[in-house]
Amino acid sequence: MNFDMIQAAAGRLKGHARVTPMLTSPFLDDIAGRRVLIKAECLQHTGSFKFRGGWSAVSALTDNALKTGVIAFSSGNHAQGIAMAARAHGAPAVIVMPSDAPQMKIDNTRTLGAEVILYDRETEDRDEIGARLASERGLTLIKPYDEPQVIAGQGTTGLEIAEQAAALGVTSGDVMVCCGGGGLTSGIALALAEMAPAMRVRPAEPKDFDDVTRSLVSGKIEHNAAHSGSICDAIITIAPGNITFPIMQAHCGPGVVVTDDECLRAMGLAFSRLKIVVEPGGAAALAAALFHPAQFDGDAVIAVATGGNVDPAQFVRALDTL
Amino acid sequence: MNFDMIQAAAGRLKGHARVTPMLTSPFLDDIAGRRVLIKAECLQHTGSFKFRGGWSAVSALTDNALKTGVIAFSSGNHAQGIAMAARAHGAPAVIVMPSDAPQMKIDNTRTLGAEVILYDRETEDRDEIGARLASERGLTLIKPYDEPQVIAGQGTTGLEIAEQAAALGVTSGDVMVCCGGGGLTSGIALALAEMAPAMRVRPAEPKDFDDVTRSLVSGKIEHNAAHSGSICDAIITIAPGNITFPIMQAHCGPGVVVTDDECLRAMGLAFSRLKIVVEPGGAAALAAALFHPAQFDGDAVIAVATGGNVDPAQFVRALDTL
Repeated sequence: MNFDMIQAAAGRLKGHARVTPMLTSPFLDDIAGRRVLIKAECLQHTGSFKFRGGWSAVSALTDNALKTGVIAFSSGNHAQGIAMAARAHGAPAVIVMPSDAPQMKIDNTRTLGAEVILYDRETEDRDEIGARLASERGLTLIKPYDEPQVIAGQGTTGLEIAEQAAALGVTSGDVMVCCGGGGLTSGIALALAEMAPAMRVRPAEPKDFDDVTRSLVSGKIEHNAAHSGSICDAIITIAPGNITFPIMQAHCGPGVVVTDDECLRAMGLAFSRLKIVVEPGGAAALAAALFHPAQFDGDAVIAVATGGNVDPAQFVRALDTL
Repeated sequence: MNFDMIQAAAGRLKGHARVTPMLTSPFLDDIAGRRVLIKAECLQHTGSFKFRGGWSAVSALTDNALKTGVIAFSSGNHAQGIAMAARAHGAPAVIVMPSDAPQMKIDNTRTLGAEVILYDRETEDRDEIGARLASERGLTLIKPYDEPQVIAGQGTTGLEIAEQAAALGVTSGDVMVCCGGGGLTSGIALALAEMAPAMRVRPAEPKDFDDVTRSLVSGKIEHNAAHSGSICDAIITIAPGNITFPIMQAHCGPGVVVTDDECLRAMGLAFSRLKIVVEPGGAAALAAALFHPAQFDGDAVIAVATGGNVDPAQFVRALDTL
């Protein structure tokens, strides 16, 4: 896993992934007490950065592997990213989703051309189902974050951040990244270590799901006590990955932990000041930048708004904070 | 008013206005029955395309005129566009707003550095107040649409549309533009006549406020019967402008009239499929593209999402359509 792989992924993504805009608002600067730059990755295809990793991984496959197809486990953004990337490559995609996943996400994934296999979280073993399908059909498993080509794809976000921030006169400062398993965080960190070494990547995590923050402190992989219980579902993972963690250890600054309420308030401000739709887990980095000013030095902070796949009812809760 | 002025405005806007993204969604394509490209101008500074015209007009002033300052009448997007552009140029800005304008728009305009003068719609004459202030202080009036440098600024949207659509393989088809006084519509039409002559610009207007659509049919400037009564407040003007109408007559195809309900549904779909916040008047073009397929030929239609300055309560109404 290295910078060259990110550059190679950028070549494969060119013309397929969107170059998402870097947004700003004087009103948000006032709240944060410094310039805030927001990388609006919620505007990526399928509504999250996961499309980058999906495209990177699928496009790196051999023609034979594409012909037989890919498989992924996901109840959310990774599913849609893989489905859309696979369809564009003419590759069959099987997505294994829990039967209690939101109907809309199941429908979306099907509409994007994937075969959705539902399993019962209580009585069935996801990994066993996936292993059987992969072996029967010769499918290639694409993991959501602990996979070098996925990390390389997410890292292309970092290449854009370096260029877009420099165009706005920002070449140093902290880059807050909403962090689950660490695929995006480690990818951006690798990219910026090369492209903008005066920038420092830091994970943003929800309260009680701060496995990466604690792992960076202790120097070893720490786990969360719970599997659920935050509205930030997109970034609830049990622990950092075996590939992503050493990268984050080498390149990242300390994590910032935010509350669900802060994420809702950040979503509301992204609505009113930036005109973008951000999901709770996608708002953690912005919440850190806006509501934890004592955590930052310098004139500017960059926050990655990682996704926008949020139900209307949840979004209304964010509007209610305004 | 000509294409060269648009190119010159583009030079002045470079590095100041955002190049807003061109968005797509396979889900919207399915609804429309053809490819739909959405120019997300709601992501422009101040949340609407009006920043372009404001910057273009302010940046075209002499140093002396900048020193004395500018004045504008607006209850909405033009006010914020002028205020932000004037501040960046160090020019005092006076905005004359009705006292019953939403408090948030008044506050925003003040926070952007403008002096806001409120007047009573019932008892005071806006033009008289403006003329007195302009004459007392030597301020330059910047009209919202019937002003060549404003039209030139809005026309820069057309330059980007031509380039971004071509990058997506689209060089012909209709370009729907949410239309009030016609500044944006005529500016884009002038730009595309030169840059993408196989594209045709068409105004989208709310039911009962279709002055431009009717004017294009009759060949003379027609007026609306009412001044209010649509949620599409940003594009409710009484008639096309004296400068904008002849340009639209020369270059535009027939208008498409949409209902308030269609605009709310388009806002809901922009939320769920594009992750952008669009105001009712800013959704008219998308509503036309999605819900009036019989009005279009060809494989693709482009819709400009012109602004995103919508109150949370109004936005909840749009979410309720999902």
